[in-house]
Amino acid sequence: MKLSQITDDHFKDQCGIFGVFGHAEASNLTYLGLYALQHRGQEAAGIVSSDGETLKAVRGIGLVSDVFGREETIASLIGSSAIGHVRYSTAGGSGERNVQPILIGCQRGEIAVAHNGNLVNADVLREQLESAGSIFQSSSDTEVLLHLYARARIGPVEDAIASSLLKARGAYSLLFLTQNALVAARDPMGIRPLALGRLGDAYVLSSETCAFDLIEATYIRDVAPGEVLVIDKDGLRSYFPFPKDTARHCIFEHVYFARPDSKVFGRSVLASRLEMGRRLARESPAPADVVVPVPDSGIGAALGYAEESGIAYGMGLVRNHYIGRTFIEPKQKVRSFGVRIKLNPVREVLEGKRVILIDDSIVRGTTSRKIVDLIRSAGAAEVHLRISSPPTTHPCHYGIDTPRRSELIASSQSVEEIRRRVGADSLAYLSPTALSAAVGDSHGTRHCMACFTGRYAVPVREEETIELFPLAVSR
Amino acid sequence: MKLSQITDDHFKDQCGIFGVFGHAEASNLTYLGLYALQHRGQEAAGIVSSDGETLKAVRGIGLVSDVFGREETIASLIGSSAIGHVRYSTAGGSGERNVQPILIGCQRGEIAVAHNGNLVNADVLREQLESAGSIFQSSSDTEVLLHLYARARIGPVEDAIASSLLKARGAYSLLFLTQNALVAARDPMGIRPLALGRLGDAYVLSSETCAFDLIEATYIRDVAPGEVLVIDKDGLRSYFPFPKDTARHCIFEHVYFARPDSKVFGRSVLASRLEMGRRLARESPAPADVVVPVPDSGIGAALGYAEESGIAYGMGLVRNHYIGRTFIEPKQKVRSFGVRIKLNPVREVLEGKRVILIDDSIVRGTTSRKIVDLIRSAGAAEVHLRISSPPTTHPCHYGIDTPRRSELIASSQSVEEIRRRVGADSLAYLSPTALSAAVGDSHGTRHCMACFTGRYAVPVREEETIELFPLAVSR
Amino acid sequence: MKLSQITDDHFKDQCGIFGVFGHAEASNLTYLGLYALQHRGQEAAGIVSSDGETLKAVRGIGLVSDVFGREETIASLIGSSAIGHVRYSTAGGSGERNVQPILIGCQRGEIAVAHNGNLVNADVLREQLESAGSIFQSSSDTEVLLHLYARARIGPVEDAIASSLLKARGAYSLLFLTQNALVAARDPMGIRPLALGRLGDAYVLSSETCAFDLIEATYIRDVAPGEVLVIDKDGLRSYFPFPKDTARHCIFEHVYFARPDSKVFGRSVLASRLEMGRRLARESPAPADVVVPVPDSGIGAALGYAEESGIAYGMGLVRNHYIGRTFIEPKQKVRSFGVRIKLNPVREVLEGKRVILIDDSIVRGTTSRKIVDLIRSAGAAEVHLRISSPPTTHPCHYGIDTPRRSELIASSQSVEEIRRRVGADSLAYLSPTALSAAVGDSHGTRHCMACFTGRYAVPVREEETIELFPLAVSR
Amino acid sequence: MKLSQITDDHFKDQCGIFGVFGHAEASNLTYLGLYALQHRGQEAAGIVSSDGETLKAVRGIGLVSDVFGREETIASLIGSSAIGHVRYSTAGGSGERNVQPILIGCQRGEIAVAHNGNLVNADVLREQLESAGSIFQSSSDTEVLLHLYARARIGPVEDAIASSLLKARGAYSLLFLTQNALVAARDPMGIRPLALGRLGDAYVLSSETCAFDLIEATYIRDVAPGEVLVIDKDGLRSYFPFPKDTARHCIFEHVYFARPDSKVFGRSVLASRLEMGRRLARESPAPADVVVPVPDSGIGAALGYAEESGIAYGMGLVRNHYIGRTFIEPKQKVRSFGVRIKLNPVREVLEGKRVILIDDSIVRGTTSRKIVDLIRSAGAAEVHLRISSPPTTHPCHYGIDTPRRSELIASSQSVEEIRRRVGADSLAYLSPTALSAAVGDSHGTRHCMACFTGRYAVPVREEETIELFPLAVSR
Repeated sequence: MKLSQITDDHFKDQCGIFGVFGHAEASNLTYLGLYALQHRGQEAAGIVSSDGETLKAVRGIGLVSDVFGREETIASLIGSSAIGHVRYSTAGGSGERNVQPILIGCQRGEIAVAHNGNLVNADVLREQLESAGSIFQSSSDTEVLLHLYARARIGPVEDAIASSLLKARGAYSLLFLTQNALVAARDPMGIRPLALGRLGDAYVLSSETCAFDLIEATYIRDVAPGEVLVIDKDGLRSYFPFPKDTARHCIFEHVYFARPDSKVFGRSVLASRLEMGRRLARESPAPADVVVPVPDSGIGAALGYAEESGIAYGMGLVRNHYIGRTFIEPKQKVRSFGVRIKLNPVREVLEGKRVILIDDSIVRGTTSRKIVDLIRSAGAAEVHLRISSPPTTHPCHYGIDTPRRSELIASSQSVEEIRRRVGADSLAYLSPTALSAAVGDSHGTRHCMACFTGRYAVPVREEETIELFPLAVSR
Repeated sequence: MKLSQITDDHFKDQCGIFGVFGHAEASNLTYLGLYALQHRGQEAAGIVSSDGETLKAVRGIGLVSDVFGREETIASLIGSSAIGHVRYSTAGGSGERNVQPILIGCQRGEIAVAHNGNLVNADVLREQLESAGSIFQSSSDTEVLLHLYARARIGPVEDAIASSLLKARGAYSLLFLTQNALVAARDPMGIRPLALGRLGDAYVLSSETCAFDLIEATYIRDVAPGEVLVIDKDGLRSYFPFPKDTARHCIFEHVYFARPDSKVFGRSVLASRLEMGRRLARESPAPADVVVPVPDSGIGAALGYAEESGIAYGMGLVRNHYIGRTFIEPKQKVRSFGVRIKLNPVREVLEGKRVILIDDSIVRGTTSRKIVDLIRSAGAAEVHLRISSPPTTHPCHYGIDTPRRSELIASSQSVEEIRRRVGADSLAYLSPTALSAAVGDSHGTRHCMACFTGRYAVPVREEETIELFPLAVSR
Repeated sequence: MKLSQITDDHFKDQCGIFGVFGHAEASNLTYLGLYALQHRGQEAAGIVSSDGETLKAVRGIGLVSDVFGREETIASLIGSSAIGHVRYSTAGGSGERNVQPILIGCQRGEIAVAHNGNLVNADVLREQLESAGSIFQSSSDTEVLLHLYARARIGPVEDAIASSLLKARGAYSLLFLTQNALVAARDPMGIRPLALGRLGDAYVLSSETCAFDLIEATYIRDVAPGEVLVIDKDGLRSYFPFPKDTARHCIFEHVYFARPDSKVFGRSVLASRLEMGRRLARESPAPADVVVPVPDSGIGAALGYAEESGIAYGMGLVRNHYIGRTFIEPKQKVRSFGVRIKLNPVREVLEGKRVILIDDSIVRGTTSRKIVDLIRSAGAAEVHLRISSPPTTHPCHYGIDTPRRSELIASSQSVEEIRRRVGADSLAYLSPTALSAAVGDSHGTRHCMACFTGRYAVPVREEETIELFPLAVSR
Repeated sequence: MKLSQITDDHFKDQCGIFGVFGHAEASNLTYLGLYALQHRGQEAAGIVSSDGETLKAVRGIGLVSDVFGREETIASLIGSSAIGHVRYSTAGGSGERNVQPILIGCQRGEIAVAHNGNLVNADVLREQLESAGSIFQSSSDTEVLLHLYARARIGPVEDAIASSLLKARGAYSLLFLTQNALVAARDPMGIRPLALGRLGDAYVLSSETCAFDLIEATYIRDVAPGEVLVIDKDGLRSYFPFPKDTARHCIFEHVYFARPDSKVFGRSVLASRLEMGRRLARESPAPADVVVPVPDSGIGAALGYAEESGIAYGMGLVRNHYIGRTFIEPKQKVRSFGVRIKLNPVREVLEGKRVILIDDSIVRGTTSRKIVDLIRSAGAAEVHLRISSPPTTHPCHYGIDTPRRSELIASSQSVEEIRRRVGADSLAYLSPTALSAAVGDSHGTRHCMACFTGRYAVPVREEETIELFPLAVSR
């Protein structure tokens, strides 16, 4: 079975995107960029490059190193601009048909797109497009954008893209590649991240800045919420076709998704996590001997908690990183089997100790129960579970793979009930206010916290009919 | 390198198609059917099945036994109806994107299509469709049909299909699969073959009847030129939406493409080939000791020639069938290397003999030269080359992969020049009249012979603009 | 399941071997040679090359084109001498451990061996070698020879090889490769074939001459029964260490194993098969309309039968050559399923006809039954089955995969019983005398016919103890 | 290229071994055990199981999850006992031939062996065995042991094994599997680790205890230095055939090889590393703002250093764990390319800080230079490199892959020279005395420290001739 099914209980980011314009090794850099973004999606990867005349695509199921493991593969992706995509396949998704970037031909020529996010009105738009005669080859919401683009009859590429995006609602950080241009776009609330960098004369774009570090590119700024950024031989040009909106960055990027060495939304992820840990220590202290993170995602907060509380930080759980993507279970199941494949407790750190266990979130609660059991099996005297975010009570509709609401343990159970369920001696979550503060929102939030609050930044299903024709773009 | 590039010099059929409606093992039977049609396309294979609710697709590069080599693969194609496709990839084709059946969603729901043939006005239609906002994911002419279908707003499936086909010009035998119906269609001239059969209560369709034999289905009749045949829970229904036209079956199916054990266009292929050989013997006799076919395609005609001439039939060339699809050449090339991989002369049959060598066609002439050399290298005293069809002077536009005209040796050289080029002692082709007669056309031809005559059944590029909207269907 | 299990009922040759000495492209030529010998073993392939210092090996499960499908693979086999092996894996064989050539190190340095044949006293030798402390990594009889070789303490390589072979009983054509020499050896009765050829300054060795044809090498002569032939920088040297014995070539090479375009034991295989057919026609005529071979192995005899009888030769069964090595059966089995995958009857040839069906042998009888059924299903009026060899009543112990005696239908049933079992109107086998004559034995046989007669050339199990030490070699 | 070549500069453990006796899921547990030991060898993996009658083997190149990724594979390894092996392939090693466990047949029946360690007199023994007629199929030192075993004519399995081991010199932890018994053995000085555990009624053996944790087995004790431990249906039996010797456990297991959550030589690895860090802080303090480990191997010592020094522990380098085994480099190399693939600095932690960087060892120094550069590139004010072991000046001959002496930077350069070479502001190593103390040796060492001192526990090449016959075993 899939290893993630037996060992992991997290919200899953659905995608990472990366792009290059104006570099002789565009596809190789994109490959490296995707490699650095691999944690954002391990099920499929793809790159489309342009040599100024045609677009070439390689896409496949597997890790970046599987899909692009042979030098000929990268070498076939000729040209000085490229975009790439890594994808976490949602349950029930339809395999190869949905691997991005999507590449199509239309009256404007060839275009490819890589999308991080989710359009909440994709169904409505698809219905209308189908009524107008469009055919769909994938079940992806992203394909809708290309149909809208293809129907925008006139004007330059940025107008066609803007006119498409004006019809879409939801979360999107997008990279479009045409023969001659790379266009980046971000939804008006900036829900998903997208950073702009520079490498010599070339421009690079990435979901997270850790990809810039790998190729020694310099971070310039984020693509702004609502910005359509065109990069072509004439340089950069910015357009803001949308009405001004409030920023609503996905706070879970700081809580769990992004790598600690990345900046997202202009802020260091590790700095946020350390601060979450410090504030968690202040809000929910516990008399204890050691602060132990659930690696790797709990490490930042645990360091912050230890620092603030003065309690020693201990490596009480060791993670096995040599994991394939599938796993054969023994028939005669051992008790806490799944989680032991990935985590092993260290008796020397835990035995006889009062342990503060730090994790970033509890989704269904099943894995947390197993981890608490592990800690106790190694002789811990007490286990105080501290979560560096508030209870996750609502699913996400903006490009994150979350279970339905009924499966979210915190949607129906109190903290005390959850504590009993996971078997901890005490349980505390970080407050929404403290979380906001930890990510740098001192006065009013700039972040989407819908998964904790149910207050969705974008209404999830609008019954309005969007007028597809004619298309009008304000520049 | 590709083995076919070094050993073969034939026109190549581009596709074989197969379908089943109403059988519990629909996808398994389709797999078997494609297996029997493998000679019609070895580069890619695919099957789409329907369980009455959704359509499932498996497509891949390789032989049928590569793509469907695991039981789980077939098992995943649930449902009681299915269509399949084998494909010979044309040079420069764009890989996985073009593997059929194509499967899309549109306002009418999901539909898949498998196509044998070629639309001569696909470019014109694509341009118009793109102007109307359509996007194309493949470079295949077939995708055009699905766009036309998706834009047909009203009426039952057969009307939508008919309205699409009314806009298309060219050669097509088509199988469409929807949730609930299997629709077969053939162009008004019946250029490419398509046969209807029965297996218990189920209906089956196939490019050639040899696929029926394998699954012990019974041949009923050909789908008629211009017929749109709907198979659903209510049984068979036929429509003839096109103006009546003259039949123009591809005569090369009898000359080379089809398996000798198949019926195409209602006639036994082996019977045709035997008769070609007999007529060739009458038209172009030669004093000789042995009649030797170029295996496997020359065997039928050679048997006919031997029978008619009274000269002994001999197995002077043996073919190696254990061939992969690629081959590593020795650097230090042997003289007739390529062809020896596939063919080896038998000295005992050839030494000191006057040989009549029978082949079905000469395309570029390079392989023929090597084969004549082979025969001589085994000691033949004379080599009289006899071709069981007329000189191929024109490329095909109806779904056959042919070189451009300038590469066809007979387009610019006389028979005597070709004889010298291939190094034969004498060379003769079958006359067009004799070929017509050999395939059963006694009074006026029912076959397309454009590759021999340049008289194309369908004009190749029309400058007319086809009116896409509105759609009108005559039933 | 394995395709051969459902479609084939033949004795199977277990191996083909090929070697080159003194050619810059030794491993590439060996690859080509194995390719030409692929019909002798489709389960595994291997090549070992020598660059004068060390030996390199590549071995794998699969066809030659699978194992050596990448240029790097051949390129890694550096050096100017090489030996190769193709293998038909016996049922229950132990996989990768038994793939040849075997390569070992010992006091004499590295040596590799490729073996066609079988040692009847391998068990006895293995027992003794194990008693003397030898360890075995494979279950192959061939490994015994290397142990004997390694224990031969003194003298040149030919002495060590000869001393090993003097202890072995059975059938063997062998190629040994050391750093500096290629040594060919053949058992004293010459049971299995081995031919010597020349390509420029290089020497080549092959089970069949068809491999010479492919690389344009010239056949010189067979390695003689009992000959140990050393090829090194000083040229060829022959040794005959064995007492003189009578030749006992495997007659089944002419009946079925070898390619018709090969010479084995110095005689054209096709010539033998034609003659088998002619003599079969004289011994067992039948009033009929058409002579139909079971392709491909029955073609030669059918042509001979047709020639002699004056009855027309007809292509009544067509073979599908696009076969993978495994096959997924439909659950709802069709009657004659297995055989139809490979063979399809042609109604035009068979309908209403009295058919003489020519096959080379009947082993279990099950496939013959299905083929007779096929012929009848296509409308044949009568089926007269003629077999171009005598009834196979005994298993082979000299390197051929045969079922145990009880499974051989002719070991327990009369010709009339077999006729009824396979459903033919009449059945006749070629007489042993005629078969002998057909392969050129006019006065007394030079061939082993144990599978027809039970008179084994080499006693199958000797209870004698072979003295392993000391080793004495007569030169 | 191989990723490890561009990012890693460590001594490499060559193997991990695991065994089970008496459990219905023996091969599945072995698979899990190898999975937990994957860090000890990533190039190849193998399992041999016994069902009491025959031994079955599966071995292959790749990670455990690659070689055993399909349920059928494990399922084919039937039986209630099994042994397994993971291997780090040494440069120039000869591929598939050397994958363990080795499985052979001999006069005593079948036996398999899995070996962690290295025999220093393997060459001498091999020469003698070859002189006595043995043949070798691998270049592995381990094969020697099986030859010795096979030549031990009499007595029970433990005698045969003991008599073999008495001839071998060097480091070995071994698992032998026969039809009916699992035998564990360890060299007289106990150089490499081997632990015994219990799972229900079954016994398990493993290089490290982390494998016991995964399957919820209980650690009983280490196999003692010089112990031959037989496990069969009668339970456990211990033999001590060797003269008593001093323990010389490989101290590098604590420094780097073993997982921190393992016990080796009866002591917690994490406890050792924390203590190394503490003692390093006492021996070599530095005025600094943050203690940063090179992950993952430096984490334990860094935590100890931070604790002892009172300086904050910081996550200044983040490791990317989604790595394949090969990597395509950009042509236009970035400065610190290799190491960035695996490590990324976190500016927030490092900028303007005086950093104490903790690593476990410096081998060639090239990677250390790159890491110091990385730290500086993120703005560190000072970099004080602290190494939690003494300078590595000598290669290992006991089963560890180390460069030759001349490549070890500390063999020819002073600490100050190395400091300049790696570009640190200061550099200090842990003293040998402190290291000894950190692994629990308070009075005189029980560990081999030859890589730091050159005082080898076992002389590396003895010119003595070992008498192979007769074999005498003292029980």
